[in-house]
Amino acid sequence: MTRTMKAVIKAERGPGLTMVDWPVPEIGPGEVLVKVLAASICGTDLHIYNWDEWAQSRLKPPFVVGHEITGRIAAVADDVTRVKVGDPVSLESHIVCNQCYYCRTGQGHICENTQIIGVDRDGGFAEFIAMPAQNAWSNPSDLPLRVAVLEENFGNAVHTAMAQDVSAKYVLVTGCGPVGIMSIAVAKAAGARRVFATDVSDYRLAMAKQAGADLTINAMTDDVVGVIRESTCDEGVDVLLEMSGAPSAIDQGFTLLKEGGEAALLGLTPGPFTFDINRHVVFKGAIVRGIAGRRLWDTWYQVRGLLESGAVDLSQLVTHEFALEDFDEAYEVFKSGESGKIMFHL
Amino acid sequence: MTRTMKAVIKAERGPGLTMVDWPVPEIGPGEVLVKVLAASICGTDLHIYNWDEWAQSRLKPPFVVGHEITGRIAAVADDVTRVKVGDPVSLESHIVCNQCYYCRTGQGHICENTQIIGVDRDGGFAEFIAMPAQNAWSNPSDLPLRVAVLEENFGNAVHTAMAQDVSAKYVLVTGCGPVGIMSIAVAKAAGARRVFATDVSDYRLAMAKQAGADLTINAMTDDVVGVIRESTCDEGVDVLLEMSGAPSAIDQGFTLLKEGGEAALLGLTPGPFTFDINRHVVFKGAIVRGIAGRRLWDTWYQVRGLLESGAVDLSQLVTHEFALEDFDEAYEVFKSGESGKIMFHL
Amino acid sequence: MTRTMKAVIKAERGPGLTMVDWPVPEIGPGEVLVKVLAASICGTDLHIYNWDEWAQSRLKPPFVVGHEITGRIAAVADDVTRVKVGDPVSLESHIVCNQCYYCRTGQGHICENTQIIGVDRDGGFAEFIAMPAQNAWSNPSDLPLRVAVLEENFGNAVHTAMAQDVSAKYVLVTGCGPVGIMSIAVAKAAGARRVFATDVSDYRLAMAKQAGADLTINAMTDDVVGVIRESTCDEGVDVLLEMSGAPSAIDQGFTLLKEGGEAALLGLTPGPFTFDINRHVVFKGAIVRGIAGRRLWDTWYQVRGLLESGAVDLSQLVTHEFALEDFDEAYEVFKSGESGKIMFHL
Amino acid sequence: MTRTMKAVIKAERGPGLTMVDWPVPEIGPGEVLVKVLAASICGTDLHIYNWDEWAQSRLKPPFVVGHEITGRIAAVADDVTRVKVGDPVSLESHIVCNQCYYCRTGQGHICENTQIIGVDRDGGFAEFIAMPAQNAWSNPSDLPLRVAVLEENFGNAVHTAMAQDVSAKYVLVTGCGPVGIMSIAVAKAAGARRVFATDVSDYRLAMAKQAGADLTINAMTDDVVGVIRESTCDEGVDVLLEMSGAPSAIDQGFTLLKEGGEAALLGLTPGPFTFDINRHVVFKGAIVRGIAGRRLWDTWYQVRGLLESGAVDLSQLVTHEFALEDFDEAYEVFKSGESGKIMFHL
Repeated sequence: MTRTMKAVIKAERGPGLTMVDWPVPEIGPGEVLVKVLAASICGTDLHIYNWDEWAQSRLKPPFVVGHEITGRIAAVADDVTRVKVGDPVSLESHIVCNQCYYCRTGQGHICENTQIIGVDRDGGFAEFIAMPAQNAWSNPSDLPLRVAVLEENFGNAVHTAMAQDVSAKYVLVTGCGPVGIMSIAVAKAAGARRVFATDVSDYRLAMAKQAGADLTINAMTDDVVGVIRESTCDEGVDVLLEMSGAPSAIDQGFTLLKEGGEAALLGLTPGPFTFDINRHVVFKGAIVRGIAGRRLWDTWYQVRGLLESGAVDLSQLVTHEFALEDFDEAYEVFKSGESGKIMFHL
Repeated sequence: MTRTMKAVIKAERGPGLTMVDWPVPEIGPGEVLVKVLAASICGTDLHIYNWDEWAQSRLKPPFVVGHEITGRIAAVADDVTRVKVGDPVSLESHIVCNQCYYCRTGQGHICENTQIIGVDRDGGFAEFIAMPAQNAWSNPSDLPLRVAVLEENFGNAVHTAMAQDVSAKYVLVTGCGPVGIMSIAVAKAAGARRVFATDVSDYRLAMAKQAGADLTINAMTDDVVGVIRESTCDEGVDVLLEMSGAPSAIDQGFTLLKEGGEAALLGLTPGPFTFDINRHVVFKGAIVRGIAGRRLWDTWYQVRGLLESGAVDLSQLVTHEFALEDFDEAYEVFKSGESGKIMFHL
Repeated sequence: MTRTMKAVIKAERGPGLTMVDWPVPEIGPGEVLVKVLAASICGTDLHIYNWDEWAQSRLKPPFVVGHEITGRIAAVADDVTRVKVGDPVSLESHIVCNQCYYCRTGQGHICENTQIIGVDRDGGFAEFIAMPAQNAWSNPSDLPLRVAVLEENFGNAVHTAMAQDVSAKYVLVTGCGPVGIMSIAVAKAAGARRVFATDVSDYRLAMAKQAGADLTINAMTDDVVGVIRESTCDEGVDVLLEMSGAPSAIDQGFTLLKEGGEAALLGLTPGPFTFDINRHVVFKGAIVRGIAGRRLWDTWYQVRGLLESGAVDLSQLVTHEFALEDFDEAYEVFKSGESGKIMFHL
Repeated sequence: MTRTMKAVIKAERGPGLTMVDWPVPEIGPGEVLVKVLAASICGTDLHIYNWDEWAQSRLKPPFVVGHEITGRIAAVADDVTRVKVGDPVSLESHIVCNQCYYCRTGQGHICENTQIIGVDRDGGFAEFIAMPAQNAWSNPSDLPLRVAVLEENFGNAVHTAMAQDVSAKYVLVTGCGPVGIMSIAVAKAAGARRVFATDVSDYRLAMAKQAGADLTINAMTDDVVGVIRESTCDEGVDVLLEMSGAPSAIDQGFTLLKEGGEAALLGLTPGPFTFDINRHVVFKGAIVRGIAGRRLWDTWYQVRGLLESGAVDLSQLVTHEFALEDFDEAYEVFKSGESGKIMFHL
């Protein structure tokens, strides 16, 4: 095995990333080494690149970045039996302890000792990454890399859309970034009556349409509440999937939510904001669910089922591909907002 | 309004049916008169025709038969506001009391005072039928009669398939009569990972295939358990939708049900039978749900959502159409087993 | 039957109430006339008395006030069968339409045409009140008036506490008004591991203690978050029952809520406020439920079960009794905050 | 550490048990050694003692018997951090793989690779037992041994009673062996409206009464269905907890179950039996849950909560105590049926 590898790292406290030679990681008991074949960029990666307030408070450079990863098993510890060398895998990015109350009650997604690769420890924008074997999710050998690389991120969409029943219901997705777009596809796959989607970018709304949204509305130029009220005979929507983190979108979404409706919140707001909890939650008898990560490992089984059956097709979501070396260029495209998912190949 | 109408009735205690002139029903407070435009035949109607043991114990001739009905509102009582003359409607066949514990807790489908039209009181194989206004479900004006007539029966399929989450899961439907076939379509619409279907008739299995079943297995000629085990990598199925009432199919279905799996039982067995509750339910930690009728009125809203979105297409399910006068011929086709749904037009 | 009766009314737009002679109401089809035997005062009644902003926007004087009512059936319409003259009843204060989507799907508590007695139409601080028969809940003949009069309000507590499983869990009740106090009793009856209660009034905290709270904390003088963290070995609470509507209490409650915890919100805030939805809901994967009224009629059956078994004892909750004529004095006591429930007898 | 210890083993294929000197087990990675302080006898242990059909098909002597165990940690492997030497613990008897679909989705209680101590591998009727650290449940240091020893078995009762909501409901427990008795206590702790209990032994019914049953009925001498119908105003029960495995009791239980009722089945029948699934499940719209073991580890947290709060008091359930040496005498008492739990101390 080579002793060093190329890796994109956050080298020091400040903006930007650097490609360097970095030691190939060693694996300990229960771990596997994964030869990375593809990776994709997430919004979190941009926070890290830009070194924003969150990044400054959370990160401890130097470390390898990147947490949306697919590849093949390159080595396994002696005690690992669930995967073997050569297996194609995608990686769950949250490493959990298996010991805390949450892990012990089927709630590993909110493990109190979670470590995220590419954030709290070395990630996968590199030739190799070491992971607990339990985080390596086996893929069919014919799953295209451009789909496999999205599974982690798709899991967020599946977790959000499946957090309540959407079949035969009106669904509103506020925010059409990649997770929003994928959640539209999930809602349609699950038999939603109609999926409405809002965003401020026509580029993204076009992707939402392609993913199956029945009606897309640009919140900058159109009257979201009015249009959806009219389209639903004044009923409003049964389910809100909040993917934007924009207080205005949250307010619109809850305004449109039916009495007794259900909201799943994945988007993160810039900070605390003024919320009308009486009108939006209490009087309505609404149910609101916060969505963190992916259910471990229920969501991954759902991911498998939806991809295997063809109920969801992710093959068009990667719009740009780059060699890892061209990471700066890739981040530029990402910042432009005119992209679906951006993939690195290695 | 004409004083009499043609109607197909069970005239006396014994096999067969008769077409007669019958008084057009009067409507009381809270009721509507429906001009019947189409009706379809259900398995229950055959029990009534054949005058079997169940029929002998339950029925009190003479009465008009038929409970799968669509038509237009011909008259409404003074206190009725939710529909008006001319509205296209399908009928919920279970008339419930709104007074009992079940009705008062959202469980009208198991109302302790249920009366079924065409069984406990006059049905709709006739030019007109009187119904409580709450049983008249408004349809879009462009809904084809061949779909509208199926809504009641489709509701059974929706109730069964939606009684548990099927998205991204392996689903087995045992019994491919019309409700089984429609439940296959619902499971596919809701994003099932794979739908397996069994029956003893190749005709029905072909219809199951057309409705979206991924794999159909003839239980007379093939090894149901072996084939499905192999097709699921020995996992078995997550969900069983039991539509046959055949003890052998029930046994196969539960044998294939995964640990922790969920079964929805709609089929009625010929009588008590030998069941291995330890192996099929207790050790497995299975969840079993009995399915009676349609949830009032939740299921009807789901029916509307699934048809409106096009997630389920029922337009091919009626395979035979007859004038009501030709009811004997229609029952002959029905008995042959070589039919989908059989519809009368009036 | 007398033609007029004494009644306490909101006579005109402005503060205060007046006792007048008022026509005994007539009953229509489906209705009953109830001879009021006791009534109690709710927070809403104080808003009405004080003629605050909400009152000004909602109320249309003149009308009889009061919505927590118990009495005996004095007359029934011809078509009413579920109760008969002489039956002891308590009244559900929300009159619902039975026609809308919500009513038709077991969600009558959020009926879109709800009318509340004593708010939208004549209430029960009077000798008689006319009600739909479905709103008359039969009581055992030996149920003391001081308990019967509380059933409607107790229903709020039951609805809130039963909105999630509390058995074997840490429960925090923020706000120890009467509904908060009753929700403590429900949580204890349902086997909570420990119930924590906060308020700013020592009088109310003493009542909370009497109702079964394991630990009471005065939010004015003590460090709520610190004390409960310490008492739960830093775990926080599994369930939050928010009864105060105070933004500071809501913030404390959610801060203490465990990852994956569940919050039921009944308290109404003075208006929109600054809420940290990321920290309190999204990252935590929390589930938040708005609570409106009582589930119709599921909650009433639960009320019956809890009282009948003795699992909850409400007999000490009425701390003051007045003749209806002394209503001004009663409101003075109510305003002081040094009371449990205040009851009128007639 | 001593090299051998006394242990009660199934020495060979045939009835009876033997006390022998047996090697003190070694511990591997992730394991702990527990010094056994008390153990209790379960129905399974009698099957093993008697060498019945099930025992003959499942067991591979020689092995140490016993699976209801409490003690103190005597040694831990280097990688174990969640318990330390000296900690008081009770043991979860099911050793699960953490690798299979079930373990990975919060359903460890139906792990496909479960091994039960005292059945599939060495148990704890011995001075020491080696266990995976995850199976050692920490107890408060002041928890009496006579309670701690019951936690595993109590977990069955908690799992069964908590499998559905019982608060404010009529509950029927069929079968008053120790688990049945404990499930009565749980149902009462959770605020059941009324708990009915049936058995054929007056001794056990007396214990059921003491545990909180509101009405006990001897199925040998009384008309179970008639008595409970009368006691519930002909309503029947909302929840059935089936603990007997007797077909006649199962039939009575389901006959009494309300429409829409919920049944949790823990008892094992002697074999397949004739069951009226139409009447008992389908027409009723009933929900039936098979109960296997304890939810890992949700049930244990519930066990802790119920014991810590005092909502359930198990201190009177052990009726007989023996030194381990007197195991034959203990089994004689157990066979008599005139006992609660029987405990060994070491």
